[in-house]
Amino acid sequence: MSYYVVKEMPPKILAKGVEMRVISGDKMTMVFFRLEPGAQIPEHSHPHEQMGTVLKGSIELIIDKDKRVVNEGNAYHVRSNVIHSGTCLGSISEVLEVFSPPREDYIQKA
Amino acid sequence: MSYYVVKEMPPKILAKGVEMRVISGDKMTMVFFRLEPGAQIPEHSHPHEQMGTVLKGSIELIIDKDKRVVNEGNAYHVRSNVIHSGTCLGSISEVLEVFSPPREDYIQKA
Repeated sequence: MSYYVVKEMPPKILAKGVEMRVISGDKMTMVFFRLEPGAQIPEHSHPHEQMGTVLKGSIELIIDKDKRVVNEGNAYHVRSNVIHSGTCLGSISEVLEVFSPPREDYIQKA
Repeated sequence: MSYYVVKEMPPKILAKGVEMRVISGDKMTMVFFRLEPGAQIPEHSHPHEQMGTVLKGSIELIIDKDKRVVNEGNAYHVRSNVIHSGTCLGSISEVLEVFSPPREDYIQKA
């Protein structure tokens, strides 16, 4: 499939307050996240390289001990195996992230 | 570098009416495009897999002979070596695209 109407894709639940809509490719996975205020992704790392941008709202990230607020329109980069975590700030936020290689765990998640 | 304020990144010019701001990784390249109304990316293909989403405005794409209008918030996927082209529709549009493997040609472009 080449085209996706994102709002019509059924969401998966990654964690409390964290919905995701996943587009899977051969070399990468694109994920549209919808985050409730206060939703948290705890500290973790993975071999996949990760890039992201905030589509709406704002999040606080800690990437390799460097804590920043990322507002709408801005971007970030998490290299392979770097420890990172995130928290959704005051309003419902939307975040797009891309991973390479593909996140097999996200694709298979019910 | 882990964090990017996209508007403060100096744009590169890809074609008439097409600005891009490029974030380079080890396995992928993320590009923020700003397109003037009517700006065109002619038919082409590349071995890199490509995924994209419209951040603002709308574009018309032809992916493997399938022509669609992609509006803000929606997404598309161009597999390796698939022929595609695009046109920016009525207003200035912003598009985010990601490529894997990295687009060495975009990284080096002056």
